[in-house]
Amino acid sequence: MDKIPILRMGAFLLVTIQVDLYDRLALNLESDLIQMVDKTRAKGVLIDISAVSIVDSFMGRIIGNIASMSRIMDAQTVVVGMQPAVAITLIELGLPLKGVHTALNVEKGMDLLKSMIDLEEEDEDQDLTEDDLIAE
Amino acid sequence: MDKIPILRMGAFLLVTIQVDLYDRLALNLESDLIQMVDKTRAKGVLIDISAVSIVDSFMGRIIGNIASMSRIMDAQTVVVGMQPAVAITLIELGLPLKGVHTALNVEKGMDLLKSMIDLEEEDEDQDLTEDDLIAE
Repeated sequence: MDKIPILRMGAFLLVTIQVDLYDRLALNLESDLIQMVDKTRAKGVLIDISAVSIVDSFMGRIIGNIASMSRIMDAQTVVVGMQPAVAITLIELGLPLKGVHTALNVEKGMDLLKSMIDLEEEDEDQDLTEDDLIAE
Repeated sequence: MDKIPILRMGAFLLVTIQVDLYDRLALNLESDLIQMVDKTRAKGVLIDISAVSIVDSFMGRIIGNIASMSRIMDAQTVVVGMQPAVAITLIELGLPLKGVHTALNVEKGMDLLKSMIDLEEEDEDQDLTEDDLIAE
């Protein structure tokens, strides 16, 4: 099993990390995920790390990479289920996961994604109205 | 990581199996899942096995056990994402997964669970109406 499954749930993708991310697995996950975002036109990516009890700088970097890649593809990333010890380690390692949204569990993460996407759409609507006004 | 995370999504629980289920892990999963069904009053359990490429009689039995236990707890079980080779192996092993519902992916599995729960509720409503009629 050298692939982490990516589950599609409506407009979102869900990834549950249960195993240690060694180099190839992490690179596979990155490319699979970006391809899935492209194929499914997902607006959000949820990464569940509730089963991860040990984190190192490599894993922190991978999560950061996924978030950055997704953002370029117009999808938001939310990391959910982080254990307290993992949060402590990340900060001690000097990896504050900048630009990555977090939530306590998958449900809260989905709510956060939905609210972020709603906001984006509102912004777009507003831009349109402004454009209309200028056109008038 | 000797625990498989169970994610709560609304009225359903989602389990993604990514690692080989050895004895203790499988037993932990069974007991964790039943406790979660009890705690969250979940109406459905989705088991994603899209990352499972090799299946043996032990794993087949565990899936059957989870489905039977959930049914006693008034929750339906749907197995999603089965690879064709796994389906072939299960039948060749003489494990047709009786009483376990299956669906092609998580989205279809959720739709199936929702329709099953709607049906149950309709039945309950109908029972109530019949009772009301008798009462009248």
